[in-house]
Amino acid sequence: MSELHDRISNSFNAQGLMKTLGAQLAFVAEGEVHILLPYAPSLTQQRGYVHAGAVTSILDTACRYAALTRAPADCDVVTAEFKINLMRPAIGDRFLAVGKVQNAGKMLAVCTGEVRAFTSADNEYKVVALMQATIANIRMRPRGKARLNDAYAARILA
Amino acid sequence: MSELHDRISNSFNAQGLMKTLGAQLAFVAEGEVHILLPYAPSLTQQRGYVHAGAVTSILDTACRYAALTRAPADCDVVTAEFKINLMRPAIGDRFLAVGKVQNAGKMLAVCTGEVRAFTSADNEYKVVALMQATIANIRMRPRGKARLNDAYAARILA
Amino acid sequence: MSELHDRISNSFNAQGLMKTLGAQLAFVAEGEVHILLPYAPSLTQQRGYVHAGAVTSILDTACRYAALTRAPADCDVVTAEFKINLMRPAIGDRFLAVGKVQNAGKMLAVCTGEVRAFTSADNEYKVVALMQATIANIRMRPRGKARLNDAYAARILA
Amino acid sequence: MSELHDRISNSFNAQGLMKTLGAQLAFVAEGEVHILLPYAPSLTQQRGYVHAGAVTSILDTACRYAALTRAPADCDVVTAEFKINLMRPAIGDRFLAVGKVQNAGKMLAVCTGEVRAFTSADNEYKVVALMQATIANIRMRPRGKARLNDAYAARILA
Repeated sequence: MSELHDRISNSFNAQGLMKTLGAQLAFVAEGEVHILLPYAPSLTQQRGYVHAGAVTSILDTACRYAALTRAPADCDVVTAEFKINLMRPAIGDRFLAVGKVQNAGKMLAVCTGEVRAFTSADNEYKVVALMQATIANIRMRPRGKARLNDAYAARILA
Repeated sequence: MSELHDRISNSFNAQGLMKTLGAQLAFVAEGEVHILLPYAPSLTQQRGYVHAGAVTSILDTACRYAALTRAPADCDVVTAEFKINLMRPAIGDRFLAVGKVQNAGKMLAVCTGEVRAFTSADNEYKVVALMQATIANIRMRPRGKARLNDAYAARILA
Repeated sequence: MSELHDRISNSFNAQGLMKTLGAQLAFVAEGEVHILLPYAPSLTQQRGYVHAGAVTSILDTACRYAALTRAPADCDVVTAEFKINLMRPAIGDRFLAVGKVQNAGKMLAVCTGEVRAFTSADNEYKVVALMQATIANIRMRPRGKARLNDAYAARILA
Repeated sequence: MSELHDRISNSFNAQGLMKTLGAQLAFVAEGEVHILLPYAPSLTQQRGYVHAGAVTSILDTACRYAALTRAPADCDVVTAEFKINLMRPAIGDRFLAVGKVQNAGKMLAVCTGEVRAFTSADNEYKVVALMQATIANIRMRPRGKARLNDAYAARILA
């Protein structure tokens, strides 16, 4: 499990956007990943709530890494598509995105997830968003052929 | 039309996240809004492409403001839900999110949109993402009752 | 609860399509509705499995009636939109669509659901489809004004 | 093109559900397929309009066959997932589902589609539904190994 955590953590830390948003990898287990996002004024929409784009970014990321925990060892994963319902304004002092694998196939994984808004130090929360996502496995080539891999990924999906 | 542009522009400029991402309001017309996002390392996923979350953020925003151009004058809009397909890696030096209203009802608007990736100075692009979104109209109360409005919005959607 | 069941049952029995498919209302509770569909050759796609359209029809219906159990008394409900993942071929001798309300607002409800495929007399099943749906409440006018209601529904959504 | 039409037509005619609904294959071209559904009382929801499930069934089928026109020769296609907005009641005497390929990759195709409701003999229509779908290519084994193919399809997706 430690190896799994390291694999996800290394990838997460390489994401410029997660650093820009201030998101943190909070939990990694087989089939489930959590990402924490503290409130910041840099994340808001026009009324001062956290922007749907920030909520979506951490939830997509949580779902994708959840899928990666179940992907074959020689595969990376990419989000093929997702759908998200924004059920209430994202009001809170921190937000936890919880992504879970519902089904992991050879080619595609289906994940569901939610974003929980916390407004105090205790564990009560409100679910502000629900996601259902499809993640595709992309077979990786041997090290040193990253550009080939990327072209391959582009060709498969596009 | 200038009044319309001002309304959208004021709201856009009040969004902390758009500033954080470096996004710019590029075009406003009745039923159609464009948002431009120049590439930056602060927007990347683990391979250096622009993160799906950034792509999604500008496209959701473009669709939502497109809906706002068609909403009744006493309404604000919120994204109820959307679905996005990420068709190819977001590789480019700038990205244009194009949101269009397909149908504007009394209560809900349906929008579609795409993100175009440009890699050179000319006008050629590849479509990297497709969205279909549902935007809800929220009736606003008179000025000075913003907190009531927000509670109202929360109650309607949640 | 009996009144609730009657309300759903009367509406279900008025649906020509449910009769055409051979679907049965199987369970009604506050926030949750089940619909059962026995296999029939009239429901198949080109390989002999049950068609995604039939799977979707019963799951949409289950989600919509689940939302109706939580709607205000003077409201009917319509499906605004849904997304469904078809995770494996619909192989079985009967299928159970389970729709649940995740969030019931004044205007919109968000439901999730799954279709379970059973291939023998016991209770083991495989989940063949997952749905996430947005259901809109439509305020009804007094009896005898059905045509007005319908026009109203059309205007709100469209 | 005649070969393409025959391939789609043979598959369409093998679908029990399309016959049950009374749907007809109306148009086949590279990247675009149309399916026609005349109104019938057997297709209705509780108010007498055509059921969302019937609308969805023909639109999913149109999108899937549109993808098939662009799939490699040794592949069949399955719907991985779709999202549909039901924008207004399906009122009309006939309905035309139009499915188009937006992007055809090696592994996945993205299609969009709409259902048009016609209420008179002329060509005016209203769009009652919008879909965005992801279709997966499934490599076929040689003839006579259909059961292996199906197991393969099940394994890839599930």
